[in-house]
Amino acid sequence: MGADPRFFPARGPLSLAAIAEAAGASLGVDDGRLLAGVAPLTLAGAQDIAFCEGRRHVAALRETRAGAVLVAADAEAAVPAGCVALVVDAPQLAYARVAALFHPRPAPVPGINPTAAIAADATIGAGCEIGPFVVVGAGAEIGPGCILHAHAVVGPGCVLGAGSILRAHASLLHCIAGTGVVLHEGARVGNEGFGFVTTKAGQHVTVPQVGRVLLGDGVEIGANACVDRGAGGDTVLGPGTRLDNLVQVGHNVKTGLGCVIVAQVGIAGSSELGDFVVIAAQAGITGHITLGDGARVGAQAGVMNHVPPGIDVVGSPAWPARETLKAFAWLRRQVAPKGNDKTGGTA
Amino acid sequence: MGADPRFFPARGPLSLAAIAEAAGASLGVDDGRLLAGVAPLTLAGAQDIAFCEGRRHVAALRETRAGAVLVAADAEAAVPAGCVALVVDAPQLAYARVAALFHPRPAPVPGINPTAAIAADATIGAGCEIGPFVVVGAGAEIGPGCILHAHAVVGPGCVLGAGSILRAHASLLHCIAGTGVVLHEGARVGNEGFGFVTTKAGQHVTVPQVGRVLLGDGVEIGANACVDRGAGGDTVLGPGTRLDNLVQVGHNVKTGLGCVIVAQVGIAGSSELGDFVVIAAQAGITGHITLGDGARVGAQAGVMNHVPPGIDVVGSPAWPARETLKAFAWLRRQVAPKGNDKTGGTA
Amino acid sequence: MGADPRFFPARGPLSLAAIAEAAGASLGVDDGRLLAGVAPLTLAGAQDIAFCEGRRHVAALRETRAGAVLVAADAEAAVPAGCVALVVDAPQLAYARVAALFHPRPAPVPGINPTAAIAADATIGAGCEIGPFVVVGAGAEIGPGCILHAHAVVGPGCVLGAGSILRAHASLLHCIAGTGVVLHEGARVGNEGFGFVTTKAGQHVTVPQVGRVLLGDGVEIGANACVDRGAGGDTVLGPGTRLDNLVQVGHNVKTGLGCVIVAQVGIAGSSELGDFVVIAAQAGITGHITLGDGARVGAQAGVMNHVPPGIDVVGSPAWPARETLKAFAWLRRQVAPKGNDKTGGTA
Repeated sequence: MGADPRFFPARGPLSLAAIAEAAGASLGVDDGRLLAGVAPLTLAGAQDIAFCEGRRHVAALRETRAGAVLVAADAEAAVPAGCVALVVDAPQLAYARVAALFHPRPAPVPGINPTAAIAADATIGAGCEIGPFVVVGAGAEIGPGCILHAHAVVGPGCVLGAGSILRAHASLLHCIAGTGVVLHEGARVGNEGFGFVTTKAGQHVTVPQVGRVLLGDGVEIGANACVDRGAGGDTVLGPGTRLDNLVQVGHNVKTGLGCVIVAQVGIAGSSELGDFVVIAAQAGITGHITLGDGARVGAQAGVMNHVPPGIDVVGSPAWPARETLKAFAWLRRQVAPKGNDKTGGTA
Repeated sequence: MGADPRFFPARGPLSLAAIAEAAGASLGVDDGRLLAGVAPLTLAGAQDIAFCEGRRHVAALRETRAGAVLVAADAEAAVPAGCVALVVDAPQLAYARVAALFHPRPAPVPGINPTAAIAADATIGAGCEIGPFVVVGAGAEIGPGCILHAHAVVGPGCVLGAGSILRAHASLLHCIAGTGVVLHEGARVGNEGFGFVTTKAGQHVTVPQVGRVLLGDGVEIGANACVDRGAGGDTVLGPGTRLDNLVQVGHNVKTGLGCVIVAQVGIAGSSELGDFVVIAAQAGITGHITLGDGARVGAQAGVMNHVPPGIDVVGSPAWPARETLKAFAWLRRQVAPKGNDKTGGTA
Repeated sequence: MGADPRFFPARGPLSLAAIAEAAGASLGVDDGRLLAGVAPLTLAGAQDIAFCEGRRHVAALRETRAGAVLVAADAEAAVPAGCVALVVDAPQLAYARVAALFHPRPAPVPGINPTAAIAADATIGAGCEIGPFVVVGAGAEIGPGCILHAHAVVGPGCVLGAGSILRAHASLLHCIAGTGVVLHEGARVGNEGFGFVTTKAGQHVTVPQVGRVLLGDGVEIGANACVDRGAGGDTVLGPGTRLDNLVQVGHNVKTGLGCVIVAQVGIAGSSELGDFVVIAAQAGITGHITLGDGARVGAQAGVMNHVPPGIDVVGSPAWPARETLKAFAWLRRQVAPKGNDKTGGTA
């Protein structure tokens, strides 16, 4: 069973040749069959194309009823009879491209919903789709081909590049955003940071937060995630950086290219990430530190010091991965009954 | 003092007999008194009924000024003179039922606010209450007796079963939901999952997320919580499953019946929970693992492997609870001064 | 470069004398120069005033091109030639006051947007600014000089004190709030708590949540943070308490004066904080415990027991800071190669 057409109508049917071209696949035999859509190996039928990525999927591959499958050369032998193998180097990447062939990102349906509240001096580019109850503030500039879904808010003076998408209830304030930026549902960009000074008498005095947020081309911000604006100077997310849901980014944080920040991570103020840093879910990064290019942080880690380029850290407080895992295994051995290392729930 | 009538007007006053019947209580003597509402032991007056659950409440029970109290047999002796004891097996459960007698969930006030934006071909069941600035997309089907509070958004094609409630600012997209479902304020259901493949050049290519969310009857989603739709195939929350605020559920996660997921928990993609799994606050579950029926995960745990049915795990990485607590106690003894185990702040 | 005038137009230019007065600074020489705004040391130009707080900033101070700088006496020697030093005891506090001189919090622009849905019997105080698509429920009372930004929702019966601000998409329900309260974007106050009782058959029965939220004067709630109302009795945040983004506060939590709760912290039901308690990011506080006045909780800590006044705790489960850090250092020494304590990523 492919995607539910109620939500995801597929283009097609498409020929094996067209699919192979999108996938960059070598296609052995083309029996002229047409395919109607994409589906996981376990749900696919004769009309669908699936993919097999790595050993985790091989058992499902042997049993699949898919009409075709994107597969690496080393798993091709497991493709069942009657299923066409499209051999590729990176099956999931090929799948992403084939799935986008059947399900291209919906183009904007140009028009401004009559309920939207657009400031008189705001600029709306050609071909934009502006949904119900959208608010665009004074002097804001929305580039061509953007989609602003229901209830999205763009604050005064903001710039949003061409082809960007604000999903339902997202808010974009004090921000200059590049092209192809996506804010998912309820994402909050440009909020006031947590900046105050406490007097000796215990009163918290707000420090005016007069910086911006700069979002590079292709940045995506997950549902209900928060990116505070700079206190002075800017919060900057580099091109291609992706934040998952419920991530917190403090004021004046900076990331390089293509960083990946998984759900519920928090990054405290003024920390800086190099290019292609990966932070796994629920980890925390303290303020005023740097993570070098390609550094990777484990889930739930608590990073309190600088991390050099290319280093993996885990644990809270975070240490290099190898030493930490060794230490914890050793600790449990001190008290655990012998031979108990493989009890359910162990790491 | 009972509930503030500005927010929670109570039905009543109600007789002891009516209350005892709702509670399933044995009522020794009925002196004909009437009660006006519910209140905690410490705040209740002569017009109120309170409850005493377990040893934590017994001191407050001895001092209460409540007119009546729901109490287990073993605490009845602590009920002060003048306070009527309603003896039950499970006082808090009885309290829930009595409180619902005074404060039934508000019924919908049928009608569609004139500001709501309802697609021409959407179906709104009988007796629904649709608040201001609500958006219902093309082809969506809202069952009878639902309440959609201000700013709620239902996406195209969604199905919402009878008697469901979307609270303010909630969004429901790409979703088939059963009856009696509740999305609390700002809950996000059906978002695009965090699915992409990174090329060798470092470009993140989005994998089209063409699955749905299926919500069983009685599912509740907490305020600002997020449930991503499936990548292919569905994200499924089984009947009676409850998510607290700020929970993150990744694409293709599945839960069984009546799971309880406490605040700020994250469950990564494709993990599967059996029936009645309980995950305490801020814990994280990695992707592609299973937690068996009745498994319980401690607060802040980080679960990286399968957990068999009925097993409790704690810690990050998570291990069976007994061994972990033993290991940590042992560790601290290695360095702590003797006799210091009970310092404030210890576990 | 000072603040972007597109977002943050500055009052001014202002004289050194006016600035020194706001800062409480001793001004050595007044050469009559005027300043146009505030900026960080590294970005400031001859028109800007910056501040230097502590050793972290001294290198930048030596290189700054700022026209003037707020500085403690012990760093005055590092102020470059041509930059006017304004010597103060607490430079960041002085900066907060000077920045507010250039960028006072925007005053309300009185008026009710014609799209707002205000109940006929709600009270809107003098001089309020009510934005597009705002909803104010029956009987609610909004004090004078409040700003309700786009899509903000105030539920029936709520009271919001003078000079308060609800930012975009915030919701305030079942709440009595003091003066000068701020809810940032998407903040959720007064939600139904996670209260239910599970029957032997596994059914979760909701306990009606009939308490309120009481917010003291000057309370601030971060973006997408959640504060549940009381189950019976109230959830109370004391005057001056500040919550950062994505914080979770359960039903019947109480805080004293001026508590500081950093991003992504969770506080479970019925726990009580004294005055000036500080909880660092991502920490969790279990239910039904107390944290004494001035207690401090480290980032990612998991607090499971009472914490006496003035005690610092860290770790999960949380222990007093000194013992915990000692234990972890000792543990790593058991397995780490000698001399490896300062590897990148260590704590």
